Amino acid sequence: MGISTSGQHSKNRIRIQDGFWNPFTELVRETVIPYQWEALNDRIPDAEPSYAVRNFRIAAGLEEGEFGGMVFQDSDIAKWLEAVGYSLASHPDPELERTADELIELVAQAQHENGYLNTYFTIKEPGKQWTNLHEAHELYCAGHMIEAAVAYYEATGKRKLLDVVCKFADYIDTVFGSEPGKLRGYDGHQEIELALVKLHRVTGEERYLKLAQFFIDERGTEPNFLVEECKQRGGYSHWAKKVLPIPTVRQMAYNQAHVPVRQQDAAVGHSVRAVYMYTAMADLARLTNDRELLEACRRLWDNTTKKQMYITGGIGSTHHGEAFSFDYDLPNDTVYAETCASIGLIFFANRMLQLEAKSEYADVMERALYNNVIGSMSQDGKHYFYVNPLEVWPKASELNPGRHHVKAVRQKWFGCSCCPPNVARLLSSLNDYIYTAAAVENTVYVHLFIGSEAQFELDAGRVGLLQQSRLPWEGYARFELTAVPGGAFALALRLPSWSGGQAGLKINGAAVSFNVVNGYAVVKRVWAPGDIVEWEPRLEAQLTAAHPEIRANAGKAAIERGPLVYCLEEADNGSPLASLSIVRGTELRSYMTPELPGGAVVIEADGRAEEHASWQADTPYRPLAELQGAVPVKLTAVPYYLWGNRKPGEMTVWIRTCSE
Amino acid sequence: MGISTSGQHSKNRIRIQDGFWNPFTELVRETVIPYQWEALNDRIPDAEPSYAVRNFRIAAGLEEGEFGGMVFQDSDIAKWLEAVGYSLASHPDPELERTADELIELVAQAQHENGYLNTYFTIKEPGKQWTNLHEAHELYCAGHMIEAAVAYYEATGKRKLLDVVCKFADYIDTVFGSEPGKLRGYDGHQEIELALVKLHRVTGEERYLKLAQFFIDERGTEPNFLVEECKQRGGYSHWAKKVLPIPTVRQMAYNQAHVPVRQQDAAVGHSVRAVYMYTAMADLARLTNDRELLEACRRLWDNTTKKQMYITGGIGSTHHGEAFSFDYDLPNDTVYAETCASIGLIFFANRMLQLEAKSEYADVMERALYNNVIGSMSQDGKHYFYVNPLEVWPKASELNPGRHHVKAVRQKWFGCSCCPPNVARLLSSLNDYIYTAAAVENTVYVHLFIGSEAQFELDAGRVGLLQQSRLPWEGYARFELTAVPGGAFALALRLPSWSGGQAGLKINGAAVSFNVVNGYAVVKRVWAPGDIVEWEPRLEAQLTAAHPEIRANAGKAAIERGPLVYCLEEADNGSPLASLSIVRGTELRSYMTPELPGGAVVIEADGRAEEHASWQADTPYRPLAELQGAVPVKLTAVPYYLWGNRKPGEMTVWIRTCSE
Repeated sequence: MGISTSGQHSKNRIRIQDGFWNPFTELVRETVIPYQWEALNDRIPDAEPSYAVRNFRIAAGLEEGEFGGMVFQDSDIAKWLEAVGYSLASHPDPELERTADELIELVAQAQHENGYLNTYFTIKEPGKQWTNLHEAHELYCAGHMIEAAVAYYEATGKRKLLDVVCKFADYIDTVFGSEPGKLRGYDGHQEIELALVKLHRVTGEERYLKLAQFFIDERGTEPNFLVEECKQRGGYSHWAKKVLPIPTVRQMAYNQAHVPVRQQDAAVGHSVRAVYMYTAMADLARLTNDRELLEACRRLWDNTTKKQMYITGGIGSTHHGEAFSFDYDLPNDTVYAETCASIGLIFFANRMLQLEAKSEYADVMERALYNNVIGSMSQDGKHYFYVNPLEVWPKASELNPGRHHVKAVRQKWFGCSCCPPNVARLLSSLNDYIYTAAAVENTVYVHLFIGSEAQFELDAGRVGLLQQSRLPWEGYARFELTAVPGGAFALALRLPSWSGGQAGLKINGAAVSFNVVNGYAVVKRVWAPGDIVEWEPRLEAQLTAAHPEIRANAGKAAIERGPLVYCLEEADNGSPLASLSIVRGTELRSYMTPELPGGAVVIEADGRAEEHASWQADTPYRPLAELQGAVPVKLTAVPYYLWGNRKPGEMTVWIRTCSE
Repeated sequence: MGISTSGQHSKNRIRIQDGFWNPFTELVRETVIPYQWEALNDRIPDAEPSYAVRNFRIAAGLEEGEFGGMVFQDSDIAKWLEAVGYSLASHPDPELERTADELIELVAQAQHENGYLNTYFTIKEPGKQWTNLHEAHELYCAGHMIEAAVAYYEATGKRKLLDVVCKFADYIDTVFGSEPGKLRGYDGHQEIELALVKLHRVTGEERYLKLAQFFIDERGTEPNFLVEECKQRGGYSHWAKKVLPIPTVRQMAYNQAHVPVRQQDAAVGHSVRAVYMYTAMADLARLTNDRELLEACRRLWDNTTKKQMYITGGIGSTHHGEAFSFDYDLPNDTVYAETCASIGLIFFANRMLQLEAKSEYADVMERALYNNVIGSMSQDGKHYFYVNPLEVWPKASELNPGRHHVKAVRQKWFGCSCCPPNVARLLSSLNDYIYTAAAVENTVYVHLFIGSEAQFELDAGRVGLLQQSRLPWEGYARFELTAVPGGAFALALRLPSWSGGQAGLKINGAAVSFNVVNGYAVVKRVWAPGDIVEWEPRLEAQLTAAHPEIRANAGKAAIERGPLVYCLEEADNGSPLASLSIVRGTELRSYMTPELPGGAVVIEADGRAEEHASWQADTPYRPLAELQGAVPVKLTAVPYYLWGNRKPGEMTVWIRTCSE
């Protein structure tokens, strides 16, 4: 298996036009980005101020005052600019661009003479730069600003912010490295690594790639930089505001810095940090043709997605450290499954697809996108889940402290928060996740079935493609070739895992057979302009079981339909949901209803409900033999991404099964 | 329903002689008490020192040094002396008594001139007495010393410690009260209330009863004493070692001080504090004929035992604050169910039985005793569970921080700990829980079926009773009347809830019918010496279901046999236990095996095991339709109190049910 060296960002252009996805991208453009701008400027009534813009004004010398917000507050500015960049690329907006230009001007003014840029250390701890990589997110913030600059440059062609971050990266390159006199360090929160790869892509500057490689390779080596750094600070902790015991190397698993990354086999520690790092590792494996790193990526991918991933594409089983726990430990009710972690998993999948086109990466990408990620956002774009549970009992969320982190309703988005801007930047750049093009092999891969106009530059020449999709409601996508090169090229259509390997393919109305290679139906031929390809993966509701080692789901099933995971809500099925079971052989009846936001397919199934009538409130336990049998009921399941949009109530993805 | 005013501690004498219980009481006498003495003297190798004896030596001026251990370290000395008292009562031991006498001498030397006694405030914060009732356990420690003194006095007739605590209580009475100039306060951890009732019992001194009443009545009134006290300390917290925000009255629910006790309807807050308080409330309701307090006790009993109690008699659903959460929230895996809380529940049940003989109190008492309490102790008496889970996955206990508090193996008992000495004092005074005698009504109630010799003083005269019991393995108890008065009196035998109301009664070999009053078979007659009563409540293994609102147990059943709850262990049934289900109509085959410690009845049942063979490690989810059916297996269940005595592994009380 060769390592593909073709990036997707060459000269390819993709623009989404899709009935399901347009409302999300419009929401980001019309609501999330403007709302976040107000938040960054401390203009949301009754919300804690963000201080993010103000910090830059103070750092730039335009205003007097104290630093406000978290140590990583700058990253909110960066994520907003990044989302704006993506948005402008697909949807020009002169006024928004002017606002962004002014903000970029401000950012530039806050930059030090030597290139350094960070308002926390500029305002609050001048002279303390690079003394607390472990906790202070300095390179993390740098990474986000780099991502913003790249996105903004690619959208507008304007170099201002790009120049700022290049100067900053050049400075960072003088501070960090294995050469004598440089810091052999790396950030406590990975992010800059993947950002430097992007900066290398748009600038062509090898130094940025090498710096990313340095950070990745240095991580977890002995002596452990983060531990030694803590010692040099005398154990002082930024977060605890006091001296703490020096952490052990093993505790650096939280930051994935307990062993060198190439030796890591299992996803551990803070899940967002982990997947951001894996993303950069996959980038580097591709760009440097590093087989050892590729093998590490595959191992970490396998462990993350096959042993530690919820069916919704959520990762992170515990809120203690927002972290992975261990294989098959996937509790539904004390879950974490942070939105940002699923977004990072999508980044990782995207980079693995650039490395090697295997449908399992796209399967996971789609799973995380259609369930965990879009489920995190309310239909008004102003309320978010940070934790995305698979089972909710609102009273327990309120009254059992072990479940306080699991919210039954999406929370109002206040100034300082990671997930909403991350959703914004993912959704506004979703066009980057639909296809990859292998120029040398003359193949266009279709990973996601999202309506879009696309152009690819293959070695054979330019390809124009118009995708129309009925996903997620129907298994149908139609591709019109709007431009074709003279020679042959291949269209590789993902055969989704949910199709059970069954799909129909028509070319110009005639059914054709196809070969499946690594999960893609590959059709290679000389195409003519106007050729129509119709792709019909089987899309039917089905019951899904979990691996028996996943104890939380024993004896249960989930309903899935195409890429969507379904759930039961109290609004449709009453309470307690635990009293319900689903008949294993039930017919699953799907129908579209306009009653759910945006219109959606709901599923009805045959179920059984335990009888409650014979129970007295004062009888907690009694002989099973006294119970009457369960009674037949109709179960109604709704797409997981729509849960919690009606009155607060119980929700569950996994449903007990019964035999008849 | 009249309130019985007959205490059980009048002139009644009960001595246990029982095949099941003797090993436990011997373990306490021969191992736990001597081992704890070594611990209190810091002589356990590799264990953290207790400092408890040393603190008294320092406070007495016999040694120089700093205070060691927790602020409530004195209570460990008290609990040990109390257990010694009970032990000496049933089993004289001159050497142990000499040791105890010397310790009591030391305690007396540490007492201040004015009666005050607390080594923490004597050594570490002199002058700060009574300034942090909320956190510093001053009256709590006093209460335990009072309980010790009462037990030691009743066992030995020696007044030394009794005089010490009377002097202390007299002093406390000058400090606390509603009179002008006195502190209108109470302890953050209830305990002294029930202790003062005992002190009143042995001394006849009304002031002690009134002081207990003051503490109970003052609690939760406005302005809230604990909140005001925090304000006076400027918010300084003993535990946090810094100034914290002043807590709200609502937060005082942790200490059951959020509203006056008479207005409390539901068990809230720290569960041990709660049941210690309810115990004193029941005492006071009985002794002062207080109907309002009785009604509060009944409400709190009902809520605790019918909405917030595990089937094992455990209470406290969350380790956050070792606390109750809310009705029907009884998670099996993130449980707390502290040993001390179940012991406190037994105290409460015992006091309710003194108030009114209703079998439901004894049912709960027996449930907590035979399951949660004795299950907490290892067979060597040196290892204990503080948390008593109903479901354990050892790997999750180790690797998921939300379950670190749930241990898969009993922990070595170190110097400072509450549960082991509490188990010791309960088991060494178990004779006090078997019977109550209503002298005026001339009735002897048998609550527990534990072999014992007993003497009661009824108005009709002296009754001598010899109970022999085959519990918990067989439903058979035999009573020989060894002494009888001239007139009639009633023997009231508990008809246990687990019998399903079915029992056989024989008198002198002849079956007789009986009336059931409040759950007791009451036989009133003029008895002759040598009369034999045989009582055979039906004792059969059965499956038990939980109330449908207890979501954690939906679709599951527990195996119970008489007073014992059973569980599945990995040692007998493999892993994961979640793959197993029990056939709803299964025969439950019981047999005695010598292979379990002490010999025990195990139960075999028909079950089903999900098939694992067709699952690949890399397939976390797949269509339910692809699964093969579950295969028949034999399930082996062992008594819960014996779990975790073999190699560490999974355990579960609640088992999924299947239909065939």
